[in-house]
Amino acid sequence: MLYPLGLRRLETPDSVPASPLRFVRGARDPGSRARRGTLLTSRGAIETPVFMTVGTRATVTGLTPDDLLALDVPILLANTYHLLLRPGPELFRRVGGLHAFMRWPRPVLTDSGGYQIFSLPGDRTINESGARFRSYIDGRIYHLTPETSIDMQAALGSDIMMALDECVPSTSQEDAVRAAMERTHRWALRSLAARKNPAQALFAIVQGGLVPALRRQSAGFLTDHPFDGFAIGGLAVGDTRAEREEITGLAVELLPEATPRYLMGVGTPPDLLYAIGCGVDMFDCVIPTHLAWQGTAFTSTGRVRVTRGANAAVDGALDARCACATCRTFSRSYLHHLFKCSEPLGPRLLSVHNLHYYLELMRQARAAIDAGVYVRFARERLSEIDHHEHAAVSA
Amino acid sequence: MLYPLGLRRLETPDSVPASPLRFVRGARDPGSRARRGTLLTSRGAIETPVFMTVGTRATVTGLTPDDLLALDVPILLANTYHLLLRPGPELFRRVGGLHAFMRWPRPVLTDSGGYQIFSLPGDRTINESGARFRSYIDGRIYHLTPETSIDMQAALGSDIMMALDECVPSTSQEDAVRAAMERTHRWALRSLAARKNPAQALFAIVQGGLVPALRRQSAGFLTDHPFDGFAIGGLAVGDTRAEREEITGLAVELLPEATPRYLMGVGTPPDLLYAIGCGVDMFDCVIPTHLAWQGTAFTSTGRVRVTRGANAAVDGALDARCACATCRTFSRSYLHHLFKCSEPLGPRLLSVHNLHYYLELMRQARAAIDAGVYVRFARERLSEIDHHEHAAVSA
Repeated sequence: MLYPLGLRRLETPDSVPASPLRFVRGARDPGSRARRGTLLTSRGAIETPVFMTVGTRATVTGLTPDDLLALDVPILLANTYHLLLRPGPELFRRVGGLHAFMRWPRPVLTDSGGYQIFSLPGDRTINESGARFRSYIDGRIYHLTPETSIDMQAALGSDIMMALDECVPSTSQEDAVRAAMERTHRWALRSLAARKNPAQALFAIVQGGLVPALRRQSAGFLTDHPFDGFAIGGLAVGDTRAEREEITGLAVELLPEATPRYLMGVGTPPDLLYAIGCGVDMFDCVIPTHLAWQGTAFTSTGRVRVTRGANAAVDGALDARCACATCRTFSRSYLHHLFKCSEPLGPRLLSVHNLHYYLELMRQARAAIDAGVYVRFARERLSEIDHHEHAAVSA
Repeated sequence: MLYPLGLRRLETPDSVPASPLRFVRGARDPGSRARRGTLLTSRGAIETPVFMTVGTRATVTGLTPDDLLALDVPILLANTYHLLLRPGPELFRRVGGLHAFMRWPRPVLTDSGGYQIFSLPGDRTINESGARFRSYIDGRIYHLTPETSIDMQAALGSDIMMALDECVPSTSQEDAVRAAMERTHRWALRSLAARKNPAQALFAIVQGGLVPALRRQSAGFLTDHPFDGFAIGGLAVGDTRAEREEITGLAVELLPEATPRYLMGVGTPPDLLYAIGCGVDMFDCVIPTHLAWQGTAFTSTGRVRVTRGANAAVDGALDARCACATCRTFSRSYLHHLFKCSEPLGPRLLSVHNLHYYLELMRQARAAIDAGVYVRFARERLSEIDHHEHAAVSA
């Protein structure tokens, strides 16, 4: 069907091993499609819906594994593209993978590098074989294909691998979106064939941009193959919030009940609340840590720019309702001082706080689903956030 | 004697309160002038000889108070000059001092700002009254006098305050050194008169550059007044190691047995080993933390530049003989990776390591004095360090 002439024939293995990832479904919310679950991995159980903290370069910027365990971070995401370029696969083969290298005992999901090839500027060409690009570090030429991506993810030893996909901007013409989607499908099958270690789960990525028919076609094709989970890709790449919500709702419905659903690279707290209500199980996003390094905190009374002068006079906690180590220990005026002095303890303390905010939001969402009150919970949290964001705009 | 006409008359109080700092003398090394002691403060006991970790801007760069307690840091040094400019004395008066602001429960020593006025570039004038300078932050004009320095240190609520001194380069002409010394004496008495809180100890600073006669004169003058301790200033400002060692040895002999002796801003591990042998009790230096942020580690086999390419292949600990949290947990290749990626976790982990190195050196020195074997201990450590530094140069 989608195998062009000239490309070596791809097959899924004749006997498919049982998925290395067991997904145990839990409570369903009666008023929405929100659902609870537990992902069982050899490195421990992950309660879903789950937010995955981003540790791009084998580190969550500024934090130690102990800091992350104190936050009860259940799973990290690491970026294959960045780790391929530096320190490279040989190191990971030598030391026995990413967990050993960064000293992280809990599960890791690795992306495939597809998104970075799409989004990072520079010298690259993409064809059926894969992507050819020049390293931003030393100018070396790399060839990232479905097979080399799986090789690298095997070297990383991640618990969940992602198939290489081709991502295009949400504003692309339908033909371009369709072509990228079809190539993504072929690459997904090549990834499946390239997997050697049955202990590493492999997820495929549904593409199709903002075109419902293509999303249907993509989900239909990929779910016919023995992937351990399915991700929704190609969102938060130029689309509006309304478009993102529409496609998320649609795409989730097309995915099987029995496997985990992962909405890639999303998003803000309202994005998460919406997508959980659609039945998404897994999320990752750099927002909490990136904003922390820029001096912005998520709080129960809206976003706070810690660097703003008014905070110099606030000797209470950053967020009086927050139980994180930062809010239990330090004042807003101290955090303000650290940021004004460009002291790295400031972003470190704010990263702890923002990650706690995201993880706590997910804990509350899970509890609300368990209690069958997710709709009311999400509505209250969304209206709280909207209220504070409007108040901030008008202030 | 040293009160010029035109300057308001200065007196020491008629009834001098008992020193807020009790210095209990311990073992004396039989082969050197090294000595053990305990500084008793209201915030806990400090075993001497002690290395004071520098927390310039109310933070030891990148580390939390919990990190410092895990290292068993006994006392911090904070910089009056930097904290005067930002966040300023009003904040400290409002929140109840530096300990409350930065959440540090153990003792703090504050310098007077004299060294920064001497060493920081910019627009400043110094006269008998004090120093007038422009803030590098907002261009505001400040007037730092012995009295305003004590006021600021009172706002900081430090356990040990330093009298404002005038520092000149070690290479200055004798006339200039003498004039600065005499002014330092007048400023020391003004500082004593300005102290209002008897719970804050006050140390004077012996000046006199590299001129033995002036050092004698300075120590003789200052020790006639009821300071709680005496510091040796004006070293590590352009002098050679031999000059520094000669003056240190001389200056310590001129100071009383009953009070603590503090060698300011010194130094490297060999500097510390030498000065402990002369009878110095207290040290501070930015070297361990500054070098950590530049990627250099102190190890049992010499200094290691973590960024050097060869470290990419070393999967063992940074220092196999080190028991710090960094060496117990992470590999040298991981630290190398963090530095190559400019990830702030690298300098954070190296700061922990370098501080552990300094604190451990002091623990070992104290144990050697207690055991009466300081000379052998210091000789062995110095020859070890020399051996590795020569090996590194010839490698």
